[in-house]
Amino acid sequence: MPYQPPIRDFAFILRDVLELERYANLPAFADASMETVEQILEEAGRFTGEVLAPLNAVGDKEGCHWSPDFTVRTPKGFKAAYDQLVEGGWPALGADPAYGGQGLPYVVSLAFSEMSSSANMAFSMYPGLTHGAYSAIKVGGSPEQKDLYLPKLASFQWGGTMNLTEPHCGTDLGLLCTKAVPQADGTYQISGQKIWISGGEQDLTENIVHLVLARIEGAPMGTRGISLFIVPKFIPDKQGNLGKRNSVKCLGLEEKMGIHGNATCVISHEEATGWLIGEENRGLSIMFVMMNEARLGVGMQGIAQAQAAYQAAAEFAKDRLQGRSLTGPKNPDGPADPIIVHPDVRRMLMDAKAIIEGGRAFLFWTALHGDLAEASPDEAVRQKGHDYMALMTPVLKGFLTDRGFQVCSDAMQVHGGSGFTEQFPVSQYLRDCRIALIYEGTNGIQALDLVGRKLAAEGGRGVMGFFAELDGFIAANAENEGLAALIAGLAKAKAELQEATMWLMQFGLANPDNAGAASTDYMHLFGLTALAYMWAMMAKTAQTKIAGGATDPIYQEKLAVGRYYIAHVLPETTGRLAKLKAGAETMMALPAEAF
Amino acid sequence: MPYQPPIRDFAFILRDVLELERYANLPAFADASMETVEQILEEAGRFTGEVLAPLNAVGDKEGCHWSPDFTVRTPKGFKAAYDQLVEGGWPALGADPAYGGQGLPYVVSLAFSEMSSSANMAFSMYPGLTHGAYSAIKVGGSPEQKDLYLPKLASFQWGGTMNLTEPHCGTDLGLLCTKAVPQADGTYQISGQKIWISGGEQDLTENIVHLVLARIEGAPMGTRGISLFIVPKFIPDKQGNLGKRNSVKCLGLEEKMGIHGNATCVISHEEATGWLIGEENRGLSIMFVMMNEARLGVGMQGIAQAQAAYQAAAEFAKDRLQGRSLTGPKNPDGPADPIIVHPDVRRMLMDAKAIIEGGRAFLFWTALHGDLAEASPDEAVRQKGHDYMALMTPVLKGFLTDRGFQVCSDAMQVHGGSGFTEQFPVSQYLRDCRIALIYEGTNGIQALDLVGRKLAAEGGRGVMGFFAELDGFIAANAENEGLAALIAGLAKAKAELQEATMWLMQFGLANPDNAGAASTDYMHLFGLTALAYMWAMMAKTAQTKIAGGATDPIYQEKLAVGRYYIAHVLPETTGRLAKLKAGAETMMALPAEAF
Repeated sequence: MPYQPPIRDFAFILRDVLELERYANLPAFADASMETVEQILEEAGRFTGEVLAPLNAVGDKEGCHWSPDFTVRTPKGFKAAYDQLVEGGWPALGADPAYGGQGLPYVVSLAFSEMSSSANMAFSMYPGLTHGAYSAIKVGGSPEQKDLYLPKLASFQWGGTMNLTEPHCGTDLGLLCTKAVPQADGTYQISGQKIWISGGEQDLTENIVHLVLARIEGAPMGTRGISLFIVPKFIPDKQGNLGKRNSVKCLGLEEKMGIHGNATCVISHEEATGWLIGEENRGLSIMFVMMNEARLGVGMQGIAQAQAAYQAAAEFAKDRLQGRSLTGPKNPDGPADPIIVHPDVRRMLMDAKAIIEGGRAFLFWTALHGDLAEASPDEAVRQKGHDYMALMTPVLKGFLTDRGFQVCSDAMQVHGGSGFTEQFPVSQYLRDCRIALIYEGTNGIQALDLVGRKLAAEGGRGVMGFFAELDGFIAANAENEGLAALIAGLAKAKAELQEATMWLMQFGLANPDNAGAASTDYMHLFGLTALAYMWAMMAKTAQTKIAGGATDPIYQEKLAVGRYYIAHVLPETTGRLAKLKAGAETMMALPAEAF
Repeated sequence: MPYQPPIRDFAFILRDVLELERYANLPAFADASMETVEQILEEAGRFTGEVLAPLNAVGDKEGCHWSPDFTVRTPKGFKAAYDQLVEGGWPALGADPAYGGQGLPYVVSLAFSEMSSSANMAFSMYPGLTHGAYSAIKVGGSPEQKDLYLPKLASFQWGGTMNLTEPHCGTDLGLLCTKAVPQADGTYQISGQKIWISGGEQDLTENIVHLVLARIEGAPMGTRGISLFIVPKFIPDKQGNLGKRNSVKCLGLEEKMGIHGNATCVISHEEATGWLIGEENRGLSIMFVMMNEARLGVGMQGIAQAQAAYQAAAEFAKDRLQGRSLTGPKNPDGPADPIIVHPDVRRMLMDAKAIIEGGRAFLFWTALHGDLAEASPDEAVRQKGHDYMALMTPVLKGFLTDRGFQVCSDAMQVHGGSGFTEQFPVSQYLRDCRIALIYEGTNGIQALDLVGRKLAAEGGRGVMGFFAELDGFIAANAENEGLAALIAGLAKAKAELQEATMWLMQFGLANPDNAGAASTDYMHLFGLTALAYMWAMMAKTAQTKIAGGATDPIYQEKLAVGRYYIAHVLPETTGRLAKLKAGAETMMALPAEAF
């Protein structure tokens, strides 16, 4: 059975938990009645399940083909699927109506992105990065740049890329040395080599819009001298008609462990013509807009691969007959019981459900805050939306991809030996998922961003607001017996997270290495606590629905998985806190030569 | 820099911690003075590092080639390396001198196996399985079978395989249906299909000795009707001269995520001629001898891949310049600091050292007990050796491969984007390592073996003996101030493990699903505690050496890594205990249809 889009779970989160219809008065939400949203999701489910999913293994096996004429051919079937994507109007879901988009809330378009990514991660990265380029130009571009590029990018007629990394610098962009030389006509000549450029060359779109970080001649060294440029593959006129070929070319493709269907390019800018976006030397701030959106999207990829891998594992576990239940045969007429009767197989499937469904709720809850940050008429709501988006983004990226990879690995484990063969899909999910822990800033960088920047932003307003929200929820449900285990678990985790936060304030300031040493444990402690909150909210929703007479089994299931999460996943927090409080001392004790 | 064999660490464990020379009075150890052992290890390090390691990536990229004439060609260079292996006499290290071996202790040959596996896991599986076949025939074969096969297997002139799995059964061997029909001449006609047969066909050895599980016509269903047969590829005469080709053939190879250099075969027995080993219907018990040895070896593979991946990561972390230390530049004259200055990179490298060095000590300590189980003149020592081998084997296999895989994944993370490309070696280590969590019984099966069989064996004598040993060590070092943190950590973990054991006795008996639900957490709790003991022992050794005036920096390093282990790895035990005690209730709450 190929990937089945989890429409039912999307609807539960959007309709029942987040109650999207509460926001019908806001512009972006006016056209997003739950009826419309569910129709869109159903159709998106068909498209991703029927068109993109069957190409996933094809892309993995075939990979992309580079030719000495510097062109790249994507795997068989990708171009036709891409054309269907564009014709179906899918790209425009979340884009601004001023540029041809449908203007739906981010939280709705995120569901489409998740389905695309589960169905075919390598494919969905092409439009994903195009959307990133759209966002950067929307934030930083001039009116002319917006008019020229945004409609083409919103419709995915043109592709977009992010040209950041160079051979000697990835994380530390301050070292980059691609140079930009101002020309008399106001353009710049861009020269330098970029690596790991996803979709840097492909045969899906008629043009490719490279967003390139470069240093204008004479600009300061370090991150304060970096500017952002548009370098189109074909130089368009003002109406968007394609003109001459720009001197930017793909010198080769990387061989990678996964996402073989996506072309990871070495890109050479050879006095290519570029246009500055925004101000000189302020390129990183625009790129960070794009990157933040991308980071949330990468967290989503972790969940998306986990979802696909989990489905394969659940199907295998129900079909594969092997051994007998420890409590007596469950399939007495068959030669053996399906392996789903074994507790240790259940453990892996329940862990998967707890992480995927909790993680999805966390993603959507944050994305809704992102929508409200833009759309709410209420200043306080907008501020909270901005605070939460900033605070949660590194957690979503780092925590959900770490956990998503673990789910993929467990899904392989459920398959036993079959999982290690390429006849079953789970090896690809595992291999594809692995990049999500690395790109758009490694998970270690996310953890540092969280403890070093996001916690302290605005005097800690974001994290304090989050604690206050948790306290409010805990207090409001203190007497709720049906939720007692969930509330107790949440309260314990929240207390531990708060203790860790205080520890960081005290010891991280005294010795910054303590903050670095604690960062990954803190990120996981944060993610575990956030998911406890999601599960408590979801359980409360389910409880209310059941009390109101709802009979859909999803509500009982949510209560059961929520209780499992508290009992079997959340206890990890205690060890995380203890490790974190152990600080940098033993971690930094050895000299570098001892490694 | 290619793989560097950790000779220094082997010597520390064998000479300083296990004090191998104490056993010089025992037969197997008589020729194993530390001087001899260190010479052997040095030479083995050269062979594995210079001959096997350079073929590792070759094997991964090229894979094995199957031909329609049912032959298999191994990757370029494998045959020449195999010939060197045989000529060098390496195979015979641990084999019985009666069959041409050198008869060295298991604990010494294990060091050679680890180096081979780090250098080239796919290659080293060929001799590894041959050694398994050697052991099974040594345990279960008739004198004639031993005389015919053991010298050829001990010298690796012939290869060996284990033919267990069939398409419909892997873990649950009771379902197997390969059949054996008795012939008038005392042989059997074997018919059936076997899958996932490592080294099932290859071009390295002149003959292949398949050990095949099959059911003799009329034998009972289930595991009580399974017999073990020798099915040689070429039927030898009594002198070992090769005769006619047997009707066993390789129908194809599996495409796999890793270990591409090892031929994973579909093997068809088509009325092949087989010879019964041991008694009818008692095949599994002999196979388990082979499997137990193999399981310890798989635990070793987890550590071996982790070691190789760690080395690559450490080298990368010292070379790659990116960003600045949080506490001020450490490489002020360079454009940036090496990333090893960052605490989160240190965390991954220190985790790796703590797991690899602690896990290696745990492997060697157990292997020495295995040697003593055979060689000691003292009945109590032999019994303890047998008890520990039985008890620790599932922990070594399950815990060390789970952790080894995590180390490989962390090593990739240290590499950032480079790690995801196939230009760097770490993707292969990660992909190769992943099979170790699955084969020779998935890690879930190991955990079940531990809680369901090994704990209760002989009235719990093994685990009780282990607790008593830990108590003794803790008491003997209670006043040792230099080890205070290590002893306190060990004592806490031991108390938690004991509490978990008591919980299992009480609640696992009441409801077997509780034992199943707890099994993986228990296995990790056990492994974490065992490594705490190893680190405490190693730290004590180091402390004693330093007090005695030793200046080799390895002793200070061991103290530092031991303290790190206690502070930053061991705290996980508390969450494991809490999860374990949550039992099966929420884990089994959902109906199978909910997945």
